Amino acid sequence: MDITITEVASRDGLQNEKHPVSTEQKIELIGRISKAGMKRFEVTSFVSPRAVPALADAEDVVKGVPDRESLIIEALVPNLRGAERAAALKLDEWVCFASASESHSQANSNTSTEEALARLQPVIDLAKQEGVVPVGAIATSFGCPFEGDVPIERVVEVAKRMTDMGVETIKLGDTIGTAWPSRVRELVRAMREALPETVLVLHLHNTRDMSLANVLTGISEGVDRYESALAGVGGCPFAPGATGNISTEDLVHFLHLEGHKTGLDLGKLIEAGHWFETVLERKLPAHLLRAKPVGETVELASTRRAAG
Amino acid sequence: MDITITEVASRDGLQNEKHPVSTEQKIELIGRISKAGMKRFEVTSFVSPRAVPALADAEDVVKGVPDRESLIIEALVPNLRGAERAAALKLDEWVCFASASESHSQANSNTSTEEALARLQPVIDLAKQEGVVPVGAIATSFGCPFEGDVPIERVVEVAKRMTDMGVETIKLGDTIGTAWPSRVRELVRAMREALPETVLVLHLHNTRDMSLANVLTGISEGVDRYESALAGVGGCPFAPGATGNISTEDLVHFLHLEGHKTGLDLGKLIEAGHWFETVLERKLPAHLLRAKPVGETVELASTRRAAG
Repeated sequence: MDITITEVASRDGLQNEKHPVSTEQKIELIGRISKAGMKRFEVTSFVSPRAVPALADAEDVVKGVPDRESLIIEALVPNLRGAERAAALKLDEWVCFASASESHSQANSNTSTEEALARLQPVIDLAKQEGVVPVGAIATSFGCPFEGDVPIERVVEVAKRMTDMGVETIKLGDTIGTAWPSRVRELVRAMREALPETVLVLHLHNTRDMSLANVLTGISEGVDRYESALAGVGGCPFAPGATGNISTEDLVHFLHLEGHKTGLDLGKLIEAGHWFETVLERKLPAHLLRAKPVGETVELASTRRAAG
Repeated sequence: MDITITEVASRDGLQNEKHPVSTEQKIELIGRISKAGMKRFEVTSFVSPRAVPALADAEDVVKGVPDRESLIIEALVPNLRGAERAAALKLDEWVCFASASESHSQANSNTSTEEALARLQPVIDLAKQEGVVPVGAIATSFGCPFEGDVPIERVVEVAKRMTDMGVETIKLGDTIGTAWPSRVRELVRAMREALPETVLVLHLHNTRDMSLANVLTGISEGVDRYESALAGVGGCPFAPGATGNISTEDLVHFLHLEGHKTGLDLGKLIEAGHWFETVLERKLPAHLLRAKPVGETVELASTRRAAG
């Protein structure tokens, strides 16, 4: 299957990052991943700089993206103020989000799910007016840190509200990494039944190591779009020290072994991941930054000498 | 499905461990995991103490296992010398292994696969004479660090040789963590076709983060036996710093979410994993040692206070 990946390292990967990352480094990050063949990026978020200081340079990052016209550039646009900032930059897609969980909506956006949805309509309208594709994203689609289970009907209801407003693509966000395969199957099937025309994107986290099993299930259900972050950066403020987004390197390695096409050069992604470790000055979670890709071998002779 | 897990932390998990672990600590490790409901342990290896000094206390560990008669105790028995040591201890099962890859056999056991297989016959015969169940284990069943791909026919051939010698259970070892789902499916199907009566056990490593996806596929093929190590200890000398065995905590958490039964208490396993971190004096790879199980929630109020 042809799989399309959206790279989210510079947005979801960095929004809670403690280590300073300069605008130039973010632009270099996008450039390095782009050189590995990545065509889609969720580059930043037009959220209030007070709320998320790490992404205060949203405009400058977008302006700096190298070879921008060859890429599809998405950004999170949480409200009309963000939309007005984004409108000046001629992005390809605006990602409009709401939490399926009421408590997470309150904690994350200080608003109810209902109010969050209501605020999306003028953003979606402005997007269309500006010739930008509006995309819906549903946070906590597979579970909430405060409420636990989020019923499938609730997620489908939020998705219906978004599609009623004019969105044709929905990202299902496994915000805290609680999705497991049979739940992925159930939710994807429920979405297909309720909204057969809607394009689905799975945004998975590896917090409990289940992300590749979830991808396997997503693919078996025909989902061909996934989001990942180089080196597996990101994470959840409610699980300190836990693994973050599914890593682009591990995802691409896995997909290629399973016979799928991504258009991406794994070697260049791994190189970019190692460079990203020098930027953040620590080891990052992607497994392919520690272990060679399947098929690459070591020399028997050199190992023997080392053992001797 | 009812799934049986064999805990291998005190054998595969510790055989390459640099941090000293005393015999008493190994016995406590087994005891703590046993209290979580684990019934099967591959406790140690009767390999030469010169070759694997970390397991030189094999006899004392076996003798110290608490409540031994309620457990099924396996140990690796690589040759007749090891078998004679093991025979005195009345174990339940002896694990007799060979590498499917010629180069790995040379590097690991200093012998060809053919010679390794020939050496198993007297061990298997002695096992039967002693009333012990002989079990076969095939290292590098899914790939070799030196040769790369290991053909499925080769693994099946080694398995046939073992069953011809009198073994009724075969462990397929993903020694270096190179298995991926469609290869797991292919090999399991080839084994079922060639040896329909043989019980299959999957011994998976998480080196490239694919182990839970491989379990998902194994289960879809009807495989109901897996091996794992508490906290995800272990690893491969050819991939320094890489993740080791699939972790018992993450495996059990995943299986329960998927609706399978293990008879294990996840909370007690996680407690044991945290204790094991104090023994090895470092953070260990199991994700459930960093993130709460799915369904456990945090308090919204306390998070708000922290954010304020």
